[in-house]
Amino acid sequence: MDVSANKRDAYVVGVDFGTLSARALVVRVSDGAEAGTAVSEYPHGAIDRILAGHGELPPDWALQDPADYTGALAAAIPAAIRNAGIDPGQVIGIATDFTASTCMPVLADGTPLCQLPGLAARPHAYPKLWKHHAAQPHADRINAAAHERGEKWINRYGGKISSEWQFAKALQLLDEDPELYQRADRWIEAADWIIWQLCGTETRNACTAGYKGIYQDGSYPAREYLAALDPRFADFADDKLAHPISPLGARAGGLSPAAAALTGLPVGIAVAIGNVDAHVTVPAAGPVAPGKMVAIMGTSTCHVMNGAELAEVPGMCGVVDGGIVAGLWGYEAGQSGVGDIFAWFTSNGVPGEFAEEARRRDVSLQQLLDEKATAEPAGAHGLIALDWAGGNRSVLVDGRLSAAVVGLTLATTAPEIYRALLESTAFGTRMIIDTFSTSGVPVTEFVVAGGLIKSAPLMQIYADVIRRPLSVIGSGQGPALGSAIHAAVAAGAYPDVPAAAAAMGRIDRDVYRPDPARADVYDELYAEYVQLHDYFGRGTNEVMHRLRAIRDRAYRSRADGGTRVRGGC
Amino acid sequence: MDVSANKRDAYVVGVDFGTLSARALVVRVSDGAEAGTAVSEYPHGAIDRILAGHGELPPDWALQDPADYTGALAAAIPAAIRNAGIDPGQVIGIATDFTASTCMPVLADGTPLCQLPGLAARPHAYPKLWKHHAAQPHADRINAAAHERGEKWINRYGGKISSEWQFAKALQLLDEDPELYQRADRWIEAADWIIWQLCGTETRNACTAGYKGIYQDGSYPAREYLAALDPRFADFADDKLAHPISPLGARAGGLSPAAAALTGLPVGIAVAIGNVDAHVTVPAAGPVAPGKMVAIMGTSTCHVMNGAELAEVPGMCGVVDGGIVAGLWGYEAGQSGVGDIFAWFTSNGVPGEFAEEARRRDVSLQQLLDEKATAEPAGAHGLIALDWAGGNRSVLVDGRLSAAVVGLTLATTAPEIYRALLESTAFGTRMIIDTFSTSGVPVTEFVVAGGLIKSAPLMQIYADVIRRPLSVIGSGQGPALGSAIHAAVAAGAYPDVPAAAAAMGRIDRDVYRPDPARADVYDELYAEYVQLHDYFGRGTNEVMHRLRAIRDRAYRSRADGGTRVRGGC
Repeated sequence: MDVSANKRDAYVVGVDFGTLSARALVVRVSDGAEAGTAVSEYPHGAIDRILAGHGELPPDWALQDPADYTGALAAAIPAAIRNAGIDPGQVIGIATDFTASTCMPVLADGTPLCQLPGLAARPHAYPKLWKHHAAQPHADRINAAAHERGEKWINRYGGKISSEWQFAKALQLLDEDPELYQRADRWIEAADWIIWQLCGTETRNACTAGYKGIYQDGSYPAREYLAALDPRFADFADDKLAHPISPLGARAGGLSPAAAALTGLPVGIAVAIGNVDAHVTVPAAGPVAPGKMVAIMGTSTCHVMNGAELAEVPGMCGVVDGGIVAGLWGYEAGQSGVGDIFAWFTSNGVPGEFAEEARRRDVSLQQLLDEKATAEPAGAHGLIALDWAGGNRSVLVDGRLSAAVVGLTLATTAPEIYRALLESTAFGTRMIIDTFSTSGVPVTEFVVAGGLIKSAPLMQIYADVIRRPLSVIGSGQGPALGSAIHAAVAAGAYPDVPAAAAAMGRIDRDVYRPDPARADVYDELYAEYVQLHDYFGRGTNEVMHRLRAIRDRAYRSRADGGTRVRGGC
Repeated sequence: MDVSANKRDAYVVGVDFGTLSARALVVRVSDGAEAGTAVSEYPHGAIDRILAGHGELPPDWALQDPADYTGALAAAIPAAIRNAGIDPGQVIGIATDFTASTCMPVLADGTPLCQLPGLAARPHAYPKLWKHHAAQPHADRINAAAHERGEKWINRYGGKISSEWQFAKALQLLDEDPELYQRADRWIEAADWIIWQLCGTETRNACTAGYKGIYQDGSYPAREYLAALDPRFADFADDKLAHPISPLGARAGGLSPAAAALTGLPVGIAVAIGNVDAHVTVPAAGPVAPGKMVAIMGTSTCHVMNGAELAEVPGMCGVVDGGIVAGLWGYEAGQSGVGDIFAWFTSNGVPGEFAEEARRRDVSLQQLLDEKATAEPAGAHGLIALDWAGGNRSVLVDGRLSAAVVGLTLATTAPEIYRALLESTAFGTRMIIDTFSTSGVPVTEFVVAGGLIKSAPLMQIYADVIRRPLSVIGSGQGPALGSAIHAAVAAGAYPDVPAAAAAMGRIDRDVYRPDPARADVYDELYAEYVQLHDYFGRGTNEVMHRLRAIRDRAYRSRADGGTRVRGGC
């Protein structure tokens, strides 16, 4: 009897842990059909202003409560099973993906420090959410020391370790609450911690270890390097991180009796190794292949792609062996602000008459602007914009950059500016594609996923700007489907993730095709974008840095003490 | 008996002919007190879309109907006299000022061609309003030929003759309607034509002849130069312009019986030589002195100043001997868009919530934005903008430039952008002041006039940015008061314009004083402005020209034939 064949008639559960909620998706193993789903909001959301018992948090902090994660398992999974109308006994495996780097201090048994008696009011005892940006000074130290000592791994991260990642956040903990640092037996990604809760044993996944934990070529940064950051930090990797790294899609263990009770799923079913929301989306978009770039487009955009070879791409977020799929090099790049920029404009730059028209026609303001913005020919607005309102994550890796709009006249309209902003993000993506291609990692297919795929006008702009057809992921729940695929592999239903992706992933190919005439105009505009990109972004005129410094000084000098938080990275 | 003393107890009338209406102001000769005023709208306004009997006008056209000018005399003057409550017999003189260059073809007796039988439907028979911008190709020819032939006068105009001026508009007439060109005995500024209507004889004023008519060092451009533009144009200056030039403040003649009947004023009272709205404002702001720059701030800003010496200031609009006051060199510079830019932003870039708040508080949207924009410290917005949404008139003299905003983040608000736009116009003014000063024409006092002086927050920004105290004209009707001053001189009540200005003009000195801390921040921001000004404006990156070309091509390529008019110069 072919066990695999049986399993393919069964179901798996994928759980996507986002910033404010978790979604469970029940998926048929044989073909990836989505049988049912449910969402559970985190009661505490993102804790970025007030921590109960402690009071106001400093600017740029963002914490979470790990009880929300287990609570979401208990709420969303049974609801999704009910929604699917299946028997929980049909479920053969579970896998999860998480925001990253969301990391926390825990005891040797996995207990989060914030759950220990007397520590509930200590901010550093909690998971630091990916968008906790208060560790920038620590990231600066990490980067300066790495370049000073010529650490080879720094080039695997485009030359810069982010303040969002594991080491910067851990160094902040050591600096600001050394007692808690000492009490933490382990420093772990939420992506791995949730697996610990499901199967009862600690694991570490290749994705977060590589992209967020500076794990390269089989090891973490050396003791000497860590000691150079702080002598007390020398043992950090050996003490708090050290653990074998597991490939994505591997079986972490069997569902523990406690987790089975929590979720209503059968004891002992396969629990897959943890994963990250963006990266896990790649197999959800069908066949896995080097050169297939998947852009997960939401408030920001994450570009993930497998490559057959190792290359150092300037300004990428990272390259990790098996970081997306075991056996291939996983590349990641990103744009800090995409949907965020459009949302900013619709809240701040649009006259009331448009809001009224949107209400009257019962469409969203962004839909209305999409429509108005694309009613005129390409280039008719006479504008070019830089898409750095949230800083630049790739290729320049500079959070202190800001956006610019050039070409405004007294005849310029709000929809025209909006279109220039849409286009600017497409130019940013083209810059990333071009940089990968010229660095020896050619992009051969471009796939879009994420919330922004709902905007057909935006997608058409992307196709025209990058002069390539756009394939679209065939699921509205890419990360959760990607997790389900990993669950199927961990359960042994498929030999590996590529095989499972081919069967369970879904892609609609060439949904948007470039229009040659528009693409010609965009070629001209992109040349202007590149020139301004390099002028403002590569040091010719560092006006954006100086403006930010002037701004920060102005706020510091305010009589009220200058605690107001201003956006930016 | 001292005739002058008697006259000083009398009244004069100043009439300011604007773009859409004319204002008459009755002023006491002895002290400049404003006794009464009235406005008359032109029934035809600016004819820029449809000319009755002809149909749609091409893009960038703007005409007027001269009957509106005489109609305004008949309506506004008697109303102003009534409003003043004086007897018309107390009026001893009248003077006018006009937009410029607003010029027209007329017969030898002053009859406008458009008033001849059969010519009412011919667009070229009408006065071309100052903002008629369809003669750009002709201005381009004028400039190319001037530089090719090394004409010395071109440097008196910052190196460029504007498409708005007499020669470009006349050359367009010749090109496009040669028959009408032939029938025109004279080509005359409306500023001079209206005087002809008042006193029955043709005169030519030093101001429009110099600034708009290329009259320098006692002559117009040479026949050879004009022939190079077009052989049929060789006689243009000799045939259609030639006439003695009269100094400002001189008596053009006595009020004709016909004009007396029209206006209700006494026959024979002094009619002063014509003048231009901006230039005539200088004496209205009190004592005349070299180095006193008067900025007339409205939709655009005109900077006028007397200098004791002739100098060539890069990118000025013009320098004319006696162009503002006889005996001094009159300098003019300008910013194409100022109030226009603020109005553009309030109509296009402000969310509905602000409009609602403005309604609720019964203030204008611009007042509300002024207040919100200046609530934060200087530099706190982290923005820098270029004030070229209407092109750049000085120092770059380039109508194809456009505006830019740099430093936008996801936290940037509409009032912050608005403030950056306010500041950008102040930086543009500082650039003009600096350019004059470094060219040997030092600015020693800065006086503001025009509609924008009502915005105290804007005025304070100007004081801080230019690091000088701002004096404010003491009249809300600067041009009409300036005309009245000229009327008093023409009537012999004062020996010359400076004497009349000292007695009748009004200025409040040092109303706004720079705050040193804010001025320090603005020094930093101005340095950024200068760097971007030179980068985008002096040819390093001609992206703005290219964007405009792309835009124009996009519109031409539209299926509907591309006749939509787009802003710009």
